[in-house]
Amino acid sequence: MTTVGILGGGQLARMMALAGAPLGLRFLVLDATPDACAGQFAPMLEADYRDQAGLAEFAGRVDVATFDFENVPAESARWLAERVPVFPNPRALAVAQDRLAEKTLFRELGIPVPEFATIDSREQLDAALASVGTPCILKTRRLGYDGKGQFRIKSPADADAAWQALGPQAASVGLILEGFVAFQRELSVVAVRGRDGELQAWPLTENWHDHGILSASLAPAQTDAALQAQALDAARRVAEALDYVGVFALELFLKDGVLVANEMAPRVHNSGHWTIEGAETSQFQNHLRAVLGLPLGSTRALGHSVMLNWIGAMPAAAPVLAEACGHWHDYGKSPREGRKVGHATLRADSASELAGALERVGKALGRESQVAPVIARLRD
Amino acid sequence: MTTVGILGGGQLARMMALAGAPLGLRFLVLDATPDACAGQFAPMLEADYRDQAGLAEFAGRVDVATFDFENVPAESARWLAERVPVFPNPRALAVAQDRLAEKTLFRELGIPVPEFATIDSREQLDAALASVGTPCILKTRRLGYDGKGQFRIKSPADADAAWQALGPQAASVGLILEGFVAFQRELSVVAVRGRDGELQAWPLTENWHDHGILSASLAPAQTDAALQAQALDAARRVAEALDYVGVFALELFLKDGVLVANEMAPRVHNSGHWTIEGAETSQFQNHLRAVLGLPLGSTRALGHSVMLNWIGAMPAAAPVLAEACGHWHDYGKSPREGRKVGHATLRADSASELAGALERVGKALGRESQVAPVIARLRD
Repeated sequence: MTTVGILGGGQLARMMALAGAPLGLRFLVLDATPDACAGQFAPMLEADYRDQAGLAEFAGRVDVATFDFENVPAESARWLAERVPVFPNPRALAVAQDRLAEKTLFRELGIPVPEFATIDSREQLDAALASVGTPCILKTRRLGYDGKGQFRIKSPADADAAWQALGPQAASVGLILEGFVAFQRELSVVAVRGRDGELQAWPLTENWHDHGILSASLAPAQTDAALQAQALDAARRVAEALDYVGVFALELFLKDGVLVANEMAPRVHNSGHWTIEGAETSQFQNHLRAVLGLPLGSTRALGHSVMLNWIGAMPAAAPVLAEACGHWHDYGKSPREGRKVGHATLRADSASELAGALERVGKALGRESQVAPVIARLRD
Repeated sequence: MTTVGILGGGQLARMMALAGAPLGLRFLVLDATPDACAGQFAPMLEADYRDQAGLAEFAGRVDVATFDFENVPAESARWLAERVPVFPNPRALAVAQDRLAEKTLFRELGIPVPEFATIDSREQLDAALASVGTPCILKTRRLGYDGKGQFRIKSPADADAAWQALGPQAASVGLILEGFVAFQRELSVVAVRGRDGELQAWPLTENWHDHGILSASLAPAQTDAALQAQALDAARRVAEALDYVGVFALELFLKDGVLVANEMAPRVHNSGHWTIEGAETSQFQNHLRAVLGLPLGSTRALGHSVMLNWIGAMPAAAPVLAEACGHWHDYGKSPREGRKVGHATLRADSASELAGALERVGKALGRESQVAPVIARLRD
């Protein structure tokens, strides 16, 4: 009986445990929050990621460890990796935690990236504004997610406000200035690499965000095979450079036919939730297969899928459940502003069927603006 | 937050909890066995089904109750139903627990059944052998499953041996003599009825047994629409007569174009396990949707599926995981002779693709005889 340890007990750990149960696995989740939602379906160890006694107990009870949360302190991951196999490896995690290391790696690998510069001081910000140009975005290097830790700079006149907002964090988490990419679409590629180096990717997914948080995903994205190949090639270079094992996502901007890499998530990813119903093998099961050295499952799509994220509070389930193609995912969390509490996936054999269902669901839930861009794309 | 109580903590409860988690449900499993496999993914209350203190605690902690195991004592189900909603209702459970009540109901509803007679004594057995005819099968009325509590009678000369084997149970669980049906195929229909009376059924499934235990299922069965309609009609009559809520299965014999009802299982059923990957909505999730009064999900099949049961011990997983269409289900049980420990589902877009995968898996696992009849049917 193999026990998989998961650092972090949120919805990703929860869906991982649900997907891993059929493989005969047991789980142990480490989280500092007693009511972490993965704990409803997997045993939980309540401890902080920096609590060495907690980490030691965790290491003693698991056969292999992985992550629900990429911002586990790198030193905790390294400490753990000296005691049990940890996938992805701590170096990969460290690179993905740091926007500067990540973008530097992308550039070294020949993957297009926005202009960027590291910022340690107010003076450097002025210099970088000149070299990177405006519009641009000042971001924390570490610990940012879902649009948090970012300040958009439209012109050099915004420099003061940007520094006021994020300057105090320069010493602790570092800052980076990134050129703004006037993209036509936001895409992501979710891929998985096995212990033996085999790499598979799910079809490219198109994503829409609202206030920096993923709002909707459409898979397969309506793009051509060349873009899919370009994305797979980028994913392969990154994964091989990091000797990555498990699922990861590359968030990409499509600009004038070129995919520009925005960032990497070293874990299962919100833009891959559609794979639970919409692919032969879900990202959650394939992550576990990779981590355990099992054969990877097929990543082929089953028809067309749309994932709608529920942020803050769950809407009524009935309009989704009433659709023949509707699938519901309630993470068992209490409501809180800006919190990811669940999602729905609609999966259908044809784009037009999917658009019809999406229209009905959007209307019934009063969420026309959430579904509108996806419907427009499906009817392109 | 709704908590669903499940009486019985085996693989059916386990798969129900896994399928119900995305609905935002919590579970509580009641089982007398401390290591019941559902307990790996759901909180468990260790108590016997007849333990009133245990049942009272269970009733106090759940919002609605259902079954993993149909042989929960009827009085326990009734006691519970006075305290919390219980689906299916205790009368339906009681009828399905008793082969005599079940077959009597089928006959009243105009559903073809084998000849049968109730047996209370050695003298009645002789008389029934004359009326029912041989070959026939002497069975316990209650508590039989997977071929247990059955004695096959080829000619009246076997009467002594049959009585010796099962006569001692006549007083406790009752006996029934059933005419043997020289069937061409064994089929089952798995159906679900909602609280509002809506009925849905998954496509007819063909089943193969080995020593009385399900060995393989093929869905959709390769039959015509008329048989599907006949099965659905039988399922509807039974469900309406019992005011049934939830998933149930009717096991059917196909003989000369007629479906003869063998028995009913008042729960999710082994011949419906393929629905996890092979149907838009699985039997496990639809059972919960029914029990909770939610809209039922679509029961349409996604391509062709074969389920292979693993009895006694798990075979190697790799040959199944290596197939693009292969899905693995290890119930997390320790091995034991005759025990259902897991299953695999192969799901493909075409029958020929499925036959090819099945052939490779059967060969790699040394289980050619398990897959041979299914391959033969797929290549009919």
